[in-house]
Amino acid sequence: MDIKEITREYLDKELTICGWVKNHRKQSNLGFIALGDGTCLKTLQVVYDKDINDFEEIQKIHIGSSIEVTGILKESLGAGQDIELVASKITLLGDCPEDYPIQPKRHTREFLRSVAYLRPRSNLFNAVFRVRSTAAQAIHEYFRLHNYVYVHTPLITTADCEGSDQMFKITTLDFNNLPKKDGKVDMSEDLFGKAAFITGSGQLHGETYAHAYKKIYTFGPTFRTENSNTKTHANEFWMIEPEICFCDLEKLMDIEEEFLKYIVKYVLTNCSDEIEFFDKFVEQGLKEKLKKILSSNFVRIDHKDVVDILKKAPNKWEFEPDYNEDIAKEHERYITEYFNGPVFIKNWPKDIKAYYMKLNPDNKTVAAVDLEVPGAGELMGGSQREEDYDKLLARMKEFNIDYKEIEWYLNLRKYGTTIHSGFGMGFERLIMYLTGIDNIRDVISYPRTPGSCEY
Amino acid sequence: MDIKEITREYLDKELTICGWVKNHRKQSNLGFIALGDGTCLKTLQVVYDKDINDFEEIQKIHIGSSIEVTGILKESLGAGQDIELVASKITLLGDCPEDYPIQPKRHTREFLRSVAYLRPRSNLFNAVFRVRSTAAQAIHEYFRLHNYVYVHTPLITTADCEGSDQMFKITTLDFNNLPKKDGKVDMSEDLFGKAAFITGSGQLHGETYAHAYKKIYTFGPTFRTENSNTKTHANEFWMIEPEICFCDLEKLMDIEEEFLKYIVKYVLTNCSDEIEFFDKFVEQGLKEKLKKILSSNFVRIDHKDVVDILKKAPNKWEFEPDYNEDIAKEHERYITEYFNGPVFIKNWPKDIKAYYMKLNPDNKTVAAVDLEVPGAGELMGGSQREEDYDKLLARMKEFNIDYKEIEWYLNLRKYGTTIHSGFGMGFERLIMYLTGIDNIRDVISYPRTPGSCEY
Repeated sequence: MDIKEITREYLDKELTICGWVKNHRKQSNLGFIALGDGTCLKTLQVVYDKDINDFEEIQKIHIGSSIEVTGILKESLGAGQDIELVASKITLLGDCPEDYPIQPKRHTREFLRSVAYLRPRSNLFNAVFRVRSTAAQAIHEYFRLHNYVYVHTPLITTADCEGSDQMFKITTLDFNNLPKKDGKVDMSEDLFGKAAFITGSGQLHGETYAHAYKKIYTFGPTFRTENSNTKTHANEFWMIEPEICFCDLEKLMDIEEEFLKYIVKYVLTNCSDEIEFFDKFVEQGLKEKLKKILSSNFVRIDHKDVVDILKKAPNKWEFEPDYNEDIAKEHERYITEYFNGPVFIKNWPKDIKAYYMKLNPDNKTVAAVDLEVPGAGELMGGSQREEDYDKLLARMKEFNIDYKEIEWYLNLRKYGTTIHSGFGMGFERLIMYLTGIDNIRDVISYPRTPGSCEY
Repeated sequence: MDIKEITREYLDKELTICGWVKNHRKQSNLGFIALGDGTCLKTLQVVYDKDINDFEEIQKIHIGSSIEVTGILKESLGAGQDIELVASKITLLGDCPEDYPIQPKRHTREFLRSVAYLRPRSNLFNAVFRVRSTAAQAIHEYFRLHNYVYVHTPLITTADCEGSDQMFKITTLDFNNLPKKDGKVDMSEDLFGKAAFITGSGQLHGETYAHAYKKIYTFGPTFRTENSNTKTHANEFWMIEPEICFCDLEKLMDIEEEFLKYIVKYVLTNCSDEIEFFDKFVEQGLKEKLKKILSSNFVRIDHKDVVDILKKAPNKWEFEPDYNEDIAKEHERYITEYFNGPVFIKNWPKDIKAYYMKLNPDNKTVAAVDLEVPGAGELMGGSQREEDYDKLLARMKEFNIDYKEIEWYLNLRKYGTTIHSGFGMGFERLIMYLTGIDNIRDVISYPRTPGSCEY
């Protein structure tokens, strides 16, 4: 039985529970064990007295040990819990030495990062990675309820259209013995017969499946080679990329808003203990922030109007706001504070956005939209996709995209093209937003960052 | 509105539906369009007559075009459907030329593979990839209902313990300009400061999280470099790997059986049209095969007893059954036919299985189990993991594993070790089993196999 499932319904019943000793307080003729099995944040109080078999041996049980306890569930008279297990039998399954790193005290996150394989046993990380799991479940459930098909787009690609300098090269060749032809490495000898990479996005493939299923999403790992050691960059992370046919930019914003609210509500409901914990120890006000999202209407505003607001602001900017430029982190912060809630910034200058975004009638902007949320900045980035063959081709040429390499992508605009839109959400950024954790390394089980690929 | 959601409840109501023309039959003063939007296998019959605006233009609409239809839902008098949409307005959204490859006729799977970006628009592949999505949902739902935590184990690794010849190397270095030191390529110049790979399994990392959450699972892409062009091999595929603490081999088999039955039942319930389709066009008897699974008790038998049965069989084997060897495909087939249902083969000779599997008291076998199912062979492979520090270390040394490289894995046996077990299931193999499709290339959106990495 899982500790998560123990309720007052089981009062006066005999239960057998396996778990790990999170804390152990001993008195001369009785003892209290905080037993955790990881299925929820809370522990079960186990009480034993000296009538139990092997009382002396049981008193020696260390923190971190795995044990099996049989006992009767009773009302607890002590403070801090309303039920407890009065043990009739306690069996040590796996011992744990006293130098066990995860002791019942506060550890720094830096220290816990150094024992990444043990840190999910700490309350903080146990809570973080359960929220991560729960948010993933919420995402799958949202899409299922709305008839989306979950598509597994490929990670290995031989198309270089993203710019191979941003992708990891992969090979089965021996670095110390590379085949050569005309003085250059001959990639035709490699497993796929040409140079191959692992990709940073499934969007283009996603669009092909959207044109078969109307609504699809991807949810999988993504790789970037960025040599950047910040709190928000990792070389491996997970991403969600929905693509929706018969959907313009306005409908896309409706979907993004509904989607985010669904996840937040799901996590507030299913991880209430965890959210309380983060609210107390990580980000004061977190719970209120999340609850407020549910009832707010997200602002929708054009990029140029955002720049107007920024220009009128009393702030001294590090980066001067500009109608033709991206907005900086300081601007994101200001604008979400200005509106006191999430903000969709839409219709961006075409030159700073991707070639596949729908050109607006003004010929200057594209139908792109970024969702900015208070405290976390950009959470989702999306756009209506250019559905016109000739316009897309012209944009590809402008951007020097090798369009012959992805003729199939262009052809979507030939065979029953549709007004369609999609967005991407970095999963880790969502988890940081939901937990208040400010370093991406602390929401990834085993983070991969430049110079660091441990475990 | 999605076609999936149209029921008789909407009779006599006005609906507006977007989708693609799957078929178009024209008569002199009326026309019938089979409209599909990909949210389900079935199409909606759209009827229009010459009183509609632009009748002549509408009659010219090609197969594959995207259209928007407004009309009243009515009882249908024709054969083949019980409801139809009597159109008052039809708008062409995206045209489609007459050389569109996906015409309403039977195409060979080989041809459709060559237009992989269009094939999900065919009935067959539309059904395959919806079953794939639905099975993925079933898997997430099973684990959620049983309090498992979904863990995203890393794909990038610098640990070479799996044998780097089976893993893709990844790099950000320029193949034509590799840094050298002492005549060898200097991998310390690479992004992670050493050689890195993309991995074939998350099991070891999964075990670390199981010891925090009791029950975890992974579900993500996996890579193998195998240079093998068969119907069952791909270089990129998806895998599910649960790990469960306080769980021995018997309990593991209980879980595997319950898990498979859950998925099969979920797919039978949620993809009934698709299963009927496969039963008719791909594998006769598929539906019965799947239904039978639900009510059968899976046989559990030791490897040595399987060899006994094989040796007594009247068959002439290509590979002679052997107590110390793996069993061949022909043996798998025989044994599932012999028992007329799924078979767990357990307690395998230790020398042909992995180092981390629990050594049995006989010192000859390990507590490993393969699940063999009729028609598809091995579907899951699992084992109880060696939880004893000294025994695991001895096995690692026997297998020449660089145990210092994965000391953390050994340490799990030091800090509150538990009897624990896990299994792996290849997702594509499951989909092949559920659909009757016999080539792995036809259950992966964009398959990657040696010499072939298109799109």
